[in-house]
Amino acid sequence: MIGRLAPPWDRLLLDARLATLRDDLGAYGVVEAGALAWKDGLLAYAGPANELPGDAAGLATRVESAEGRWITPGLVDCHTHLVFAGDRAREFERRLQGASYEQIAREGGGILSSVRATRAADEDSLLAVSLPRARSLCADGVTTLEIKSGYGLDFENERKMLRVARRIGEALGISVRCTYLAAHALPAEFAGRADDYIDAVIGWLPRLHEEGLVDAVDAFCEGIGFSPAQTRRVFEAARGLGLPVKLHADQLSDLGGAALTASFGGLSADHIEWTNTDAVRAMAAAGTVAVLLPGAFHVLRETRLPPLDALREHAVPMAVATDLNPGTSPLQSLRLAMSLACTHFRLTPEEALRGATVHAAAALGLHDRGRLAAGQRADFVQWRIGHPAELAYWLGGDLVHSVHVAGRRLG
Amino acid sequence: MIGRLAPPWDRLLLDARLATLRDDLGAYGVVEAGALAWKDGLLAYAGPANELPGDAAGLATRVESAEGRWITPGLVDCHTHLVFAGDRAREFERRLQGASYEQIAREGGGILSSVRATRAADEDSLLAVSLPRARSLCADGVTTLEIKSGYGLDFENERKMLRVARRIGEALGISVRCTYLAAHALPAEFAGRADDYIDAVIGWLPRLHEEGLVDAVDAFCEGIGFSPAQTRRVFEAARGLGLPVKLHADQLSDLGGAALTASFGGLSADHIEWTNTDAVRAMAAAGTVAVLLPGAFHVLRETRLPPLDALREHAVPMAVATDLNPGTSPLQSLRLAMSLACTHFRLTPEEALRGATVHAAAALGLHDRGRLAAGQRADFVQWRIGHPAELAYWLGGDLVHSVHVAGRRLG
Ligand SMILES: [Zn+2]
Ligand SMILES: [Zn+2]
Repeated sequence: MIGRLAPPWDRLLLDARLATLRDDLGAYGVVEAGALAWKDGLLAYAGPANELPGDAAGLATRVESAEGRWITPGLVDCHTHLVFAGDRAREFERRLQGASYEQIAREGGGILSSVRATRAADEDSLLAVSLPRARSLCADGVTTLEIKSGYGLDFENERKMLRVARRIGEALGISVRCTYLAAHALPAEFAGRADDYIDAVIGWLPRLHEEGLVDAVDAFCEGIGFSPAQTRRVFEAARGLGLPVKLHADQLSDLGGAALTASFGGLSADHIEWTNTDAVRAMAAAGTVAVLLPGAFHVLRETRLPPLDALREHAVPMAVATDLNPGTSPLQSLRLAMSLACTHFRLTPEEALRGATVHAAAALGLHDRGRLAAGQRADFVQWRIGHPAELAYWLGGDLVHSVHVAGRRLG
Repeated sequence: MIGRLAPPWDRLLLDARLATLRDDLGAYGVVEAGALAWKDGLLAYAGPANELPGDAAGLATRVESAEGRWITPGLVDCHTHLVFAGDRAREFERRLQGASYEQIAREGGGILSSVRATRAADEDSLLAVSLPRARSLCADGVTTLEIKSGYGLDFENERKMLRVARRIGEALGISVRCTYLAAHALPAEFAGRADDYIDAVIGWLPRLHEEGLVDAVDAFCEGIGFSPAQTRRVFEAARGLGLPVKLHADQLSDLGGAALTASFGGLSADHIEWTNTDAVRAMAAAGTVAVLLPGAFHVLRETRLPPLDALREHAVPMAVATDLNPGTSPLQSLRLAMSLACTHFRLTPEEALRGATVHAAAALGLHDRGRLAAGQRADFVQWRIGHPAELAYWLGGDLVHSVHVAGRRLG
């Protein structure tokens, strides 16, 4: 690696302020008066300019100034459902007009309305409506994106969603990780037969995996979703194929979802408002990341907080994600998720930034990104800010100067 | 007017879906299969395409298709403090690290830190740091913007802020309304002499007004701000100059600020979380708009709601604004304020949209904008949405197709 990353580098940026998020460098891993270099899509140098191994002009094919801008790793949104057709704005409106969940269900609303619309869309139209949402995330600094299936709920439509997710990555030139979430909701045709549906979900998985469409497997483990026993069967199928698991866990009640995930060495347990301390210990032991989703918490006006003190005490890495979805989190900005995590969950801006970079990457099983350090992918953002805390402080606004993915400038 | 707006028009857009916000047309004042035409900066036609007075091709110099896009009036942000130097992200961070307000004040934080930074900046630098914030608002659909002074707190620096506000309007080609808010906080040099400071505030006003820098007068009437008696003196000075008034009223306690504003026939009472029903009646009688500021409510994690039922019952127009400021509402998107108004205050998306258009215009004393109707300014936004409810539903995202101000396309 070192030999491969030796100068001459492709590009060297001087006069940069780096928030490397390396643990050995204090708050945010800051390097003021920093330099950043990359070669063949990887970072070759990220450190003090005055420790560069030689005269700057000779080190790279092109040497430029970052004009004092702050640079962070590219943001990683590790939990989204951004591939869907239709939207649920009318349902949002009906709720605010006083309609009950029952009325809305009678009117055809709820998650199954997203399933209907997503099934009805062909692959190209599904791509066309989903792409702008991914583009919004990237415009705000995201360079790696997870996308879940889960509005198809049959083989062909789950496959279509995963194919669209892959195509989004190609279209935007970013990394997309595809998560199989057929165990998201029970489709009408399996009403009253949840175990049969889980059989089907398990049956579709190997074929989708063979097509290279699955990077991880997820489920919605909840009273209104699938039981721990059903979730366990899905996880066992994933394990049989060598696929990592993650879970929508303990959002509305403590069914032991986070603990179950940890027992499978899962990548992440997500939501986890009701997760207890024993489960937090199990997550710590298993290296399972806690993915906090303040968008849904905000929109649903929840009051039960994730076990933040226990997560900190047991050093469970906390990620922050948008949960971008049409029902409970129509949130198209990861910075906004960071801000909501600070306001609702009292994360510090630094925790929020680690949560949207290095810990989010870990939640996807990716350890080649999320920090600024030699050998990491050259995914980084130059920001128009005066301090990294601003990334979680501003609500909205256009703070991005430029985004690089694997050393190539986006957009 | 009619004669002046007779065809040939400058431009005619066909195949448009209009959310006119006219009261006589049902929800959102929708016209499906609509047409929009303008001439000399004013709307000349906004209605059903099939009621156009003649053959479309002959009606305008240029006829185009809006390709089915939704069009709304340009958004109006009727309450901002967006001209300031420095930011308070570090203070936000310190609070989340557990620092008390007292500690932060000892560390030099709080509103007076914005005053120090704003005083220290020269006019051009103040413009340079403020302009991107205004640009963010406009990129999200804002075409008319109010900007308050109030971080100068002496003649020269209040003047500098108001001049920068005017220059922002010129630089961006949008309407900026300037509000004199010297009675925002007590500067250190007047410590213990609030009445003397109010004398000074009243003394500076005629000179700034003479320079054409003041469109309205505001104050911060609160236990931690100025008293109702002091506010009344400021209002009387404004009235003496024929300037309209508005007020930061009843945000943290009920000091009778909204009622005082109504008694002066004020344009708006803003915040009003603690306003009582009698004051709401007085606002209704005086035509004073209620400006809701959910950003500060959100960031401060307030729980006391404005008297929404009373406002609705007495038909007080409700506006929604960002309150964009570095301390309590670092909110750079009016759509986001609309979303927060729905989530925190349970406004409907239609109320939020009226609040960010026609009612916001009224809060600025402007009746020539905020609806799509012949004779109104040709300020409008074409959106990439499937329904107007989406404007308050999405958190973040880039929904703007294009923005026109007085018939001219922005950006
Ligand atoms: Zn989710
Ligand atoms: Zn204010």
